Amino acid sequence: MSWTLSQRAQKLTSSAIREILKVTERPEVISFAGGLPSPDTFPVERLRAKAAEVLTNDASPALQYGPTEGYLKLREWIAERYSTPGVRIDPQNVLVTTGSQQGLDLLGKTLIDSGSKVLVETPTYLGALQAFSLFEPNFVSVTSDEDGLVPSALTPKILEGARFLYVLPNFQNPSGRSIGAARRVAIAASAREAGVPIVEDNPYGDLWYDAEPAAPIASLWREGTIYLGSFSKVLAPGLRLGYAIAPAEVMPKLLQAKQAADLHTPSFNQRLVHEVIKDGFLREHVPTIRRRYKAQRDAMQAALVANLPQSGPRACRWQVPGGGMFFWLELPEGVDAEALLPRAVERGVAFVPGAPFYAGEAMKNTLRLSFVTVAPEAIARGVRALAAALESMP
Amino acid sequence: MSWTLSQRAQKLTSSAIREILKVTERPEVISFAGGLPSPDTFPVERLRAKAAEVLTNDASPALQYGPTEGYLKLREWIAERYSTPGVRIDPQNVLVTTGSQQGLDLLGKTLIDSGSKVLVETPTYLGALQAFSLFEPNFVSVTSDEDGLVPSALTPKILEGARFLYVLPNFQNPSGRSIGAARRVAIAASAREAGVPIVEDNPYGDLWYDAEPAAPIASLWREGTIYLGSFSKVLAPGLRLGYAIAPAEVMPKLLQAKQAADLHTPSFNQRLVHEVIKDGFLREHVPTIRRRYKAQRDAMQAALVANLPQSGPRACRWQVPGGGMFFWLELPEGVDAEALLPRAVERGVAFVPGAPFYAGEAMKNTLRLSFVTVAPEAIARGVRALAAALESMP
Repeated sequence: MSWTLSQRAQKLTSSAIREILKVTERPEVISFAGGLPSPDTFPVERLRAKAAEVLTNDASPALQYGPTEGYLKLREWIAERYSTPGVRIDPQNVLVTTGSQQGLDLLGKTLIDSGSKVLVETPTYLGALQAFSLFEPNFVSVTSDEDGLVPSALTPKILEGARFLYVLPNFQNPSGRSIGAARRVAIAASAREAGVPIVEDNPYGDLWYDAEPAAPIASLWREGTIYLGSFSKVLAPGLRLGYAIAPAEVMPKLLQAKQAADLHTPSFNQRLVHEVIKDGFLREHVPTIRRRYKAQRDAMQAALVANLPQSGPRACRWQVPGGGMFFWLELPEGVDAEALLPRAVERGVAFVPGAPFYAGEAMKNTLRLSFVTVAPEAIARGVRALAAALESMP
Repeated sequence: MSWTLSQRAQKLTSSAIREILKVTERPEVISFAGGLPSPDTFPVERLRAKAAEVLTNDASPALQYGPTEGYLKLREWIAERYSTPGVRIDPQNVLVTTGSQQGLDLLGKTLIDSGSKVLVETPTYLGALQAFSLFEPNFVSVTSDEDGLVPSALTPKILEGARFLYVLPNFQNPSGRSIGAARRVAIAASAREAGVPIVEDNPYGDLWYDAEPAAPIASLWREGTIYLGSFSKVLAPGLRLGYAIAPAEVMPKLLQAKQAADLHTPSFNQRLVHEVIKDGFLREHVPTIRRRYKAQRDAMQAALVANLPQSGPRACRWQVPGGGMFFWLELPEGVDAEALLPRAVERGVAFVPGAPFYAGEAMKNTLRLSFVTVAPEAIARGVRALAAALESMP
């Protein structure tokens, strides 16, 4: 039996991250490779109590098929969460998704044709590249610097004919970078002028450690921005609960794509999360996550400063991320992070090489370090091992 | 702001079923329109107890990101469930999906190019037409009769170049029809000879009321069949838990498509269902569903016989389904079920017209009646109202 695969499937290559994570599952390895939140932040007791409540008071609707767009009360909560004194979000513009990853899939389906130009940051989220790739776009990388996407790079020529601009403005995965208020205004203005929609992906915005991020780009250009949010980093990713806030014009198509994808996101999970959060729980819970992760970020920064050369021919470069889960490390020119990885694993530490996060030409001397699942003392040990591996490189 | 939608999105039309279901949400309407299982069959107490157990004993992994392919113990259970003394299924061939609807999406992604020939039954499951349509296939309807897909219709010409044959052999949605053992052998042989894979979708197979269905087509041709199963009809659809059993050759591509679609199916739901079923619970639970639904099926058959003409110029035709959730009613020639629907709703009863279930030319004088969410006495009233609506037609 020989299978005829679709052209898009033939082009798929195995995920580098997936393969790497397999290597690093050995318990003796200190892993900075994961994109996982710390399980210590999961509000287990509350979830247990609320699961029992939902299965006592609302068992039938929680276990039955539900509406494609999601549980109305959860959509109302999300709409309220993003409404400002000036602008009210209508729950009709909220679609609950099976994790925000699914939002990327639905956007690929509804907005990308084979060969469509799609603008992405440099680097960008690997999972978005994977989701969009199935619809065979022509990715164009927009220049980014230490303050994120560079607005002046959004020239009329680069914007022309693009289906959308995909951007993660807060503590980006993988770079940890954020885009400030002034750049957001400039980006929204350029995109609006060119009529190019923006897809704003914000899984990490609540995890800020120094200062709250600027207002969402969506708030600057409602009718042209699709906003993706998630409960994965503030509650628990294993519930797979995200959402899209989209203009009325694209909502019907997103809904139809959603119905074809999985009919709807699990009713039980939607009601469970709504019960957990409806009384303002996140207002007390999220600050506890911030405090924990901030300490880990500070530990990693201290360890990096203590162990890596910051000047001279072997200097490494990095920024302190203002939130999120990742440091992005630039190794000395010519040092390939993929070649460094086995040396690091040998010494008991793992990370994710940066190359797969580039849609265009990759900077191979980059790597991503997650600090949220490793305790501060292990962070120090891990960074020392990383420095030793780096020293061992020819 | 004007959005440029993908060509596939431009072609999407609003789901007929979706629009109809809105009409029938009025509580005074007896609805035979739903495709929903009865909430009375949901094992609420057991789910509540096991949810508490999972969130006590395994909270971290249940709430954390998990492997794309699904929870190993659940995949082992599924593999064991389909293993026979002769053939062992390897858990490596099992992919957990977010409802079996997602299996259809993943198959569309990996097997369908624009214009690819896809063979379907006449009629077939509307949700599959929706899922596959996003990948712009050329559907070809294969002749079906009262015993399901007609093997002699699988000529070399119709099979030539087809990407796959999609078939629901047990108590098909919408027709209620089943394919017997001899036809399964003939279908598998023709498909194998032509090298055309079979997608076997089996959400209803456990819901048999007279005799257990024949062995799956997959058991006749393992290397050429992808089998889709679901917990929606035997436990609860609101958990969105299904699975695909696929040959090793296509599994890596399905996995990559799954990862891009939603990373993985909710860890919590997978562990919850595994805890619920691992000790053989379905062996006692499913027979209680069968007994309940059989009584409803018998009530509908009695009501149809009592109220609808079975001979003469206004004769209606139907079969007694041996399982599942649906009667498929053929109205007198020239009577359009869509035109009948508003008259029926006026009289307090709803159904789904048959036309949207056809990939090719539709028989407009057909409709689908679900009997599982309506109590026997209401079934009798509903069918009387349906008969009155039919009499009122010009």
